[in-house]
Amino acid sequence: MENPRPLDTLNKARNQRVIVDLKNRKQLVGKLKAFDIHINVVLEDAEERVDGEITRKLGTIFIRGDTIIIISLE
Amino acid sequence: MENPRPLDTLNKARNQRVIVDLKNRKQLVGKLKAFDIHINVVLEDAEERVDGEITRKLGTIFIRGDTIIIISLE
Amino acid sequence: MENPRPLDTLNKARNQRVIVDLKNRKQLVGKLKAFDIHINVVLEDAEERVDGEITRKLGTIFIRGDTIIIISLE
Amino acid sequence: MENPRPLDTLNKARNQRVIVDLKNRKQLVGKLKAFDIHINVVLEDAEERVDGEITRKLGTIFIRGDTIIIISLE
Amino acid sequence: MENPRPLDTLNKARNQRVIVDLKNRKQLVGKLKAFDIHINVVLEDAEERVDGEITRKLGTIFIRGDTIIIISLE
Amino acid sequence: MENPRPLDTLNKARNQRVIVDLKNRKQLVGKLKAFDIHINVVLEDAEERVDGEITRKLGTIFIRGDTIIIISLE
Amino acid sequence: MENPRPLDTLNKARNQRVIVDLKNRKQLVGKLKAFDIHINVVLEDAEERVDGEITRKLGTIFIRGDTIIIISLE
Repeated sequence: MENPRPLDTLNKARNQRVIVDLKNRKQLVGKLKAFDIHINVVLEDAEERVDGEITRKLGTIFIRGDTIIIISLE
Repeated sequence: MENPRPLDTLNKARNQRVIVDLKNRKQLVGKLKAFDIHINVVLEDAEERVDGEITRKLGTIFIRGDTIIIISLE
Repeated sequence: MENPRPLDTLNKARNQRVIVDLKNRKQLVGKLKAFDIHINVVLEDAEERVDGEITRKLGTIFIRGDTIIIISLE
Repeated sequence: MENPRPLDTLNKARNQRVIVDLKNRKQLVGKLKAFDIHINVVLEDAEERVDGEITRKLGTIFIRGDTIIIISLE
Repeated sequence: MENPRPLDTLNKARNQRVIVDLKNRKQLVGKLKAFDIHINVVLEDAEERVDGEITRKLGTIFIRGDTIIIISLE
Repeated sequence: MENPRPLDTLNKARNQRVIVDLKNRKQLVGKLKAFDIHINVVLEDAEERVDGEITRKLGTIFIRGDTIIIISLE
Repeated sequence: MENPRPLDTLNKARNQRVIVDLKNRKQLVGKLKAFDIHINVVLEDAEERVDGEITRKLGTIFIRGDTIIIISLE
């Protein structure tokens, strides 16, 4: 099938910085290292942002997919 | 089966601008590049709108399907 | 099996106007063009109503099934 | 297996009037015409009740199972 | 496997009165007639209680499993 | 596979007293008798606690897994 | 497949202290002993934190995966 699939987009974003918007209104920003079909995601050098302010330095984090709204390239 | 299926409609909307209404009351508007059976969606040249106002320029975004209410052709 | 199934009812409503009540208290009214087993639905000539007032003209829309409460024939 | 199953009870209620309590605190009352394993339900001659008052005459409706709390025989 | 399973407990409670606590803070009390792996439950001679007060006589009811918190023997 | 799995921990806790924290902010304390892969749990000699106070004596209870946050050994 | 997967990250964190952020705004901190594909997690020497303050010493706990937002290495 030649049509692109959503996970192809995530695949191209590997090792790039992404912004993950969560359902709890926070953002997690970091380098995309891994993801799976549930959209579980691993970020490196991650930080948490609330209303644009950095609120936590988090290092390597595992994010459970069902808490994610959008993933955008920075 | 000759009856149209919902994903056929999304398929016809590829590369067209769509408006995605999210459960968190925001809208994401952009060009539909990809989707899958979970209704995970990729938009290009996306922007976020709240109450009709553009609130963020987002570029390429991956939207997790379970946060979506409706997808409409602009 | 001779007992009718819920999707049979949706099947008979194809190309007829239906009212879709959403969990967010809005209604979407339009011509039922497609649905699937997740109750993802496509409406044509759709409009959004809130408290009986038309709030948006939407054209063709894809509705994610898990946001739907009821679908009723107009 | 001789033990009764929950769907047997719904099966016996076919063509009888049932009261469906929804998670949004509304009730739908009507003749049970169809159901499936997701507890998607079709009612005929349905009406909506809120706090015991009839708020809408709905005719034939499809109810998505995940919005239902209980189904009781009238 | 010799370890007891949760459904064994429900099986032993068949035809006994049980109290079902729902996520909407109500209780349903009645004789347990049937259940399945989704914890869909049928009660006979059921009544609804709120804060310990009987608020409705319900007869035979089908309860959708995903609305249940606990089932306890009276 | 030699790595321990989460259900191994629950298995070792059989017949011991555990504290189950629910999503509705209540706790259920009792002897762990059974569980399954959905984390449906049966407790014996259970009591409900709210803010550390015993609010109900419950005997044998079935807890639906999706209402549970954590299970801890007392 | 050579691309790293999210569970690989959790696997490397075994026996290390992790911080688990829950949907109820609490944190659980402890040594990661086990996890599965649902992201059910077992921590040892766990403590609960709210707004950075230790609120409970919990010992060994089983955390149901669907209550987890992120897992980060301390």
